[in-house]
Amino acid sequence: MTLPVHHCWLPDDLGADLGSHTISLEPGTGPTAETLRQEIDTLTARHGGALVAGPADVVVRLAADIPTDTFRLTRAGAVLLEAYDGPSLVRAWFHLLRLSATHGWDAPAGPELHVPSQPIRMLDHWDNVARHDVMGQVERGYAGGSLFYRDGRLRDDLSHVGRYARLLASIGINRVGLNNVNVHTREARLLTHGLDDVARLAAAFRPWGITSYLSVSFAAPMTVGGLKTADPLDRTVQDWWRTAVARLYEAVPDFGGVIVKADSEGQPGPFGWGRDHADGANMLACALAPHGGEVFWRAFVYNHHQDWRDRSTDRARAAFDAFTPLDGRFDDNVVLQVKHGPMDFQVREPIAPLLGCMPATNLALEMQVTQEYTGQQRHICYLGPMWSEILRGELSSEVAELVAGRATGRSRGGVVGVSNVGTDEFWTGHPLAQANLWAFGRLAWDSGLDPLEVLDEWIALTFDSDLVAEVHTIMATSWQTYEKYTAPLGIGFMVRPGHHYGPDIDGYEYTPWGTYHFADRDGIGVDRSVASGTGFAGLYPEPLASRYEDPLTCPDELLLFFHHVPYAHRLRSGRTVIQHIYNTHFEGVAEVEQMVAAWDALAGRIDPSMHARVAERLREQLRSAIEWRDQVNTYFLRKSGIPDQRGRLIHL
Amino acid sequence: MTLPVHHCWLPDDLGADLGSHTISLEPGTGPTAETLRQEIDTLTARHGGALVAGPADVVVRLAADIPTDTFRLTRAGAVLLEAYDGPSLVRAWFHLLRLSATHGWDAPAGPELHVPSQPIRMLDHWDNVARHDVMGQVERGYAGGSLFYRDGRLRDDLSHVGRYARLLASIGINRVGLNNVNVHTREARLLTHGLDDVARLAAAFRPWGITSYLSVSFAAPMTVGGLKTADPLDRTVQDWWRTAVARLYEAVPDFGGVIVKADSEGQPGPFGWGRDHADGANMLACALAPHGGEVFWRAFVYNHHQDWRDRSTDRARAAFDAFTPLDGRFDDNVVLQVKHGPMDFQVREPIAPLLGCMPATNLALEMQVTQEYTGQQRHICYLGPMWSEILRGELSSEVAELVAGRATGRSRGGVVGVSNVGTDEFWTGHPLAQANLWAFGRLAWDSGLDPLEVLDEWIALTFDSDLVAEVHTIMATSWQTYEKYTAPLGIGFMVRPGHHYGPDIDGYEYTPWGTYHFADRDGIGVDRSVASGTGFAGLYPEPLASRYEDPLTCPDELLLFFHHVPYAHRLRSGRTVIQHIYNTHFEGVAEVEQMVAAWDALAGRIDPSMHARVAERLREQLRSAIEWRDQVNTYFLRKSGIPDQRGRLIHL
Repeated sequence: MTLPVHHCWLPDDLGADLGSHTISLEPGTGPTAETLRQEIDTLTARHGGALVAGPADVVVRLAADIPTDTFRLTRAGAVLLEAYDGPSLVRAWFHLLRLSATHGWDAPAGPELHVPSQPIRMLDHWDNVARHDVMGQVERGYAGGSLFYRDGRLRDDLSHVGRYARLLASIGINRVGLNNVNVHTREARLLTHGLDDVARLAAAFRPWGITSYLSVSFAAPMTVGGLKTADPLDRTVQDWWRTAVARLYEAVPDFGGVIVKADSEGQPGPFGWGRDHADGANMLACALAPHGGEVFWRAFVYNHHQDWRDRSTDRARAAFDAFTPLDGRFDDNVVLQVKHGPMDFQVREPIAPLLGCMPATNLALEMQVTQEYTGQQRHICYLGPMWSEILRGELSSEVAELVAGRATGRSRGGVVGVSNVGTDEFWTGHPLAQANLWAFGRLAWDSGLDPLEVLDEWIALTFDSDLVAEVHTIMATSWQTYEKYTAPLGIGFMVRPGHHYGPDIDGYEYTPWGTYHFADRDGIGVDRSVASGTGFAGLYPEPLASRYEDPLTCPDELLLFFHHVPYAHRLRSGRTVIQHIYNTHFEGVAEVEQMVAAWDALAGRIDPSMHARVAERLREQLRSAIEWRDQVNTYFLRKSGIPDQRGRLIHL
Repeated sequence: MTLPVHHCWLPDDLGADLGSHTISLEPGTGPTAETLRQEIDTLTARHGGALVAGPADVVVRLAADIPTDTFRLTRAGAVLLEAYDGPSLVRAWFHLLRLSATHGWDAPAGPELHVPSQPIRMLDHWDNVARHDVMGQVERGYAGGSLFYRDGRLRDDLSHVGRYARLLASIGINRVGLNNVNVHTREARLLTHGLDDVARLAAAFRPWGITSYLSVSFAAPMTVGGLKTADPLDRTVQDWWRTAVARLYEAVPDFGGVIVKADSEGQPGPFGWGRDHADGANMLACALAPHGGEVFWRAFVYNHHQDWRDRSTDRARAAFDAFTPLDGRFDDNVVLQVKHGPMDFQVREPIAPLLGCMPATNLALEMQVTQEYTGQQRHICYLGPMWSEILRGELSSEVAELVAGRATGRSRGGVVGVSNVGTDEFWTGHPLAQANLWAFGRLAWDSGLDPLEVLDEWIALTFDSDLVAEVHTIMATSWQTYEKYTAPLGIGFMVRPGHHYGPDIDGYEYTPWGTYHFADRDGIGVDRSVASGTGFAGLYPEPLASRYEDPLTCPDELLLFFHHVPYAHRLRSGRTVIQHIYNTHFEGVAEVEQMVAAWDALAGRIDPSMHARVAERLREQLRSAIEWRDQVNTYFLRKSGIPDQRGRLIHL
């Protein structure tokens, strides 16, 4: 872990102007006080300013009249940066630092209160302690090893975790999940036999104002505790959890709580004992409540032993059907963590309707920063625009307001991202994937931001403001480009089973996973209409339900998600489905070729090692995009028999 | 390894009549002498006879007037069983023992000379010393762990290997390969740093007249030896091999030689240094010749980075194109080991034409006893009929004569099987898969045997002669049944990539492996004709070339291997291709249902643990057969749009 690591959006020369001034600090006594002192000391020492005790150009201090998790920026002679508590003051400080680099750090005369859109701004780490036979050290990790664990143990040196925590604090993250939601044997013991490790990790995040959470196995009372049951209504089970949680809080009094993937993809859950998910979640919530802890309970519950021959079961309905009957039954310290789409982090899905139907439940919107289905950090795929579209989407209210809890009058709610970092020297494998981590944090803080402005902020901080235009061109529509050359029109999947990289059109077609496209010689798509299909379209509020119900009004990009149509069906764009498939796949590759050329043109203007890394990944992206284009086009030409109107080469 | 293990075809009560007589033994002094003494002593002690020094009812002895690897059975007062050397006498003894159980062990008055069809009767073990991340302890092993290795080490207790060697000796096997032909890091060191282990394994097989061979890595001079090259024409490389081989023979003076998979699926080979396979094989042959050692050089060489878009490259041609130009260039102690078909152990392939075009080269026909593509020892698939068809097939001569070397006047040649055994208590996972090991040995010894009579021998020895009819019914046509419900008409593959179990019709369709079916909405198959395809059909001698060239004369079961035809193409059977697909898939499942019923009816007449094991596997076979039927039928109904003439249920 002594490799050189990339500075990301916090280069050493950031905040030169701010650092040339005198700054006074009244940070209180919490664990973040020393953090702020060191940050300001280092910055002023580097740029000729000073951390002073008396009057100063900038005053950074606690103030009792500000709500928690917000901060206030004012000019009253000096620039005043104020927050109620240490964690908020750390985040405030990085805001000022960023202002110093981008828009100037001076403050308005009147007080400017910065309130985050999302109270919960969490990153989950799907890191395994023991290397998993199939999934490795980090499940769906594409950036080297785990920052936390190696070969079955917590790392001895956690200084790198500190550097990572600083990056997260600088974008406003306030919670982290320390281990994979798929909790295997070794990881289930963290709660009972690994509290020293948990405490050490929590201690690495604490100075940065970030609270830690542990993923636990619902069956732990049996597998770790030796009980005969894990029934949430069983008194011995409840006692076991109460004791385990009490010991956890003895070790880490400010611990955040637990994350649970239950009854999902083989993980144990309350269904195993004939209980429902409110029973399960509330049992844990009871154990955590005395300590102020939270339960993040994932809604990713579906039948992964589906029979592909059964057209009546629809995985897209699963979370809705399982959880809407439970609305109002979850305890106040339970947060239902819902993936943004009804399937699984595809490049294009409709918004999960469940998010609009749980007014009496705390929610968190789960998004995948790690690019499992979006190019695995070998492809450039800037996800800010997708997340922005989701957050600004409308169900019963705007999604950002629903998940924050404001639309429903709840105080607990927000967003959770699955982290994309690892031991890679650029943190994220693909250096440009740093932008996704940045954008996740920025949109969590302010869900109304323009994701392309967020991108430009990132480019200016990471590279140089001279490069904003060029790098913007490469990245801004890279999500749409990725969508073009992969699965078309919202149908999803079509990836190689298991690792999920590269095309395999029928790869999931006859599997138990509930992910089908039903392509035959005449047409393609899943009929999820109320009139003739699974009824999923009807789970949306109006006007969405009617819009999705009718293939003529359904948005093109979601057509095959909601309807099975002939290849000659004419899209709202005026093109037929088959011609759309051909066109977008040719276009997608052409756009990657343009990315390659644009990046090549930047040689000499970007640090050579970063330039070389991106160039190498772009070569793979181009190869892979061509493979996607050719397999998709050939598959549908063979099946439909309809030639490309423009006569381009499609292999037979 | 102290578990109870199944007796296979050598139950303890075998040879009761023979064992009730007096037997004298003159076994010479070799390592097999003690083996024979113990065998006869144990048998006679059990059944009331005696091993005697003087005149006896049966005389087992060496005789100088018999060729090696044969034996002679005569009645001259006593029954005389004679062979030239110890290994042959061991095999002769088991012949007599088997006669005692099946046809009576008395001998004809005139001498009966038993000469094996195949001088080489070898079993290769694809066992890894270190557990491989993907392939595990035994590559393509379906019967538990390795008999030899565990977790990176040779087992301490090799007594079970002795029991295994006895089984092999009893069916005439005379050679074994000790490790996987894919030689990984750990295994490459067996030759240089593992000679004690090699010697211990050779010592376990030696008493049973079986000679041991090691798979080696062509790049060992670099990866193990630290040289800068493995160029076979480089003097330092030649010296390295000479020294390594000399040390091997110091440790095991009667060692057999080496097995090499070169330039194949990522294994290094002479192509890497611009040399051909004769250069590579002969370099090793030179090192081995002074010690009487042999090189088994595999012909499984093809481009595994093929572009699926490229219709001109044909993997089926690869071995032919690579090796026929080298005929006559291989040294006398090189054996070219050729898989039976041009692809890779599919349930149906034409015979590899290479076998008929190497008159000046020693050959060995490689067959897969382990059921990689034939049900992985979860399905009953008795392979004797397939192997018999291959051995009795005609190229320039009968295949059995070609590979034995008789057709070409060569003295070295034979057959190699990939072993199907492991630490499973029934040796082979599926108890009935023992029959494949038996049949391999029996057909190696006498390639003209009727495979169904061979099956009946096995049933009578393993179960009871009362069960021959019933078990015969279940197993006799199980290969054809497996063919019916899997990939149709010789097209092959359509399996899940990687592990190769279960259906995935397009699983290999767009991969680099050269294994395609080219199904579109109009038809399916690979055009390998001379007239319009890859020309592969023209590699056969007449009349085969003409028969394969014309879709009207091509045998139905190979039609899609040689031709791309419309779904409505009428087979020689009179059915269309599409109707054949539907019919055979329904029939295949129905036949498995009959197997299940027939096996269930045997409850109480078969050892309960064996009955239960087979019943459990049959449930999985039926589930899997239904999955195959439904995926194949749905795939082709979706693609062709042609309904089943008989209106049976095919899911859409």
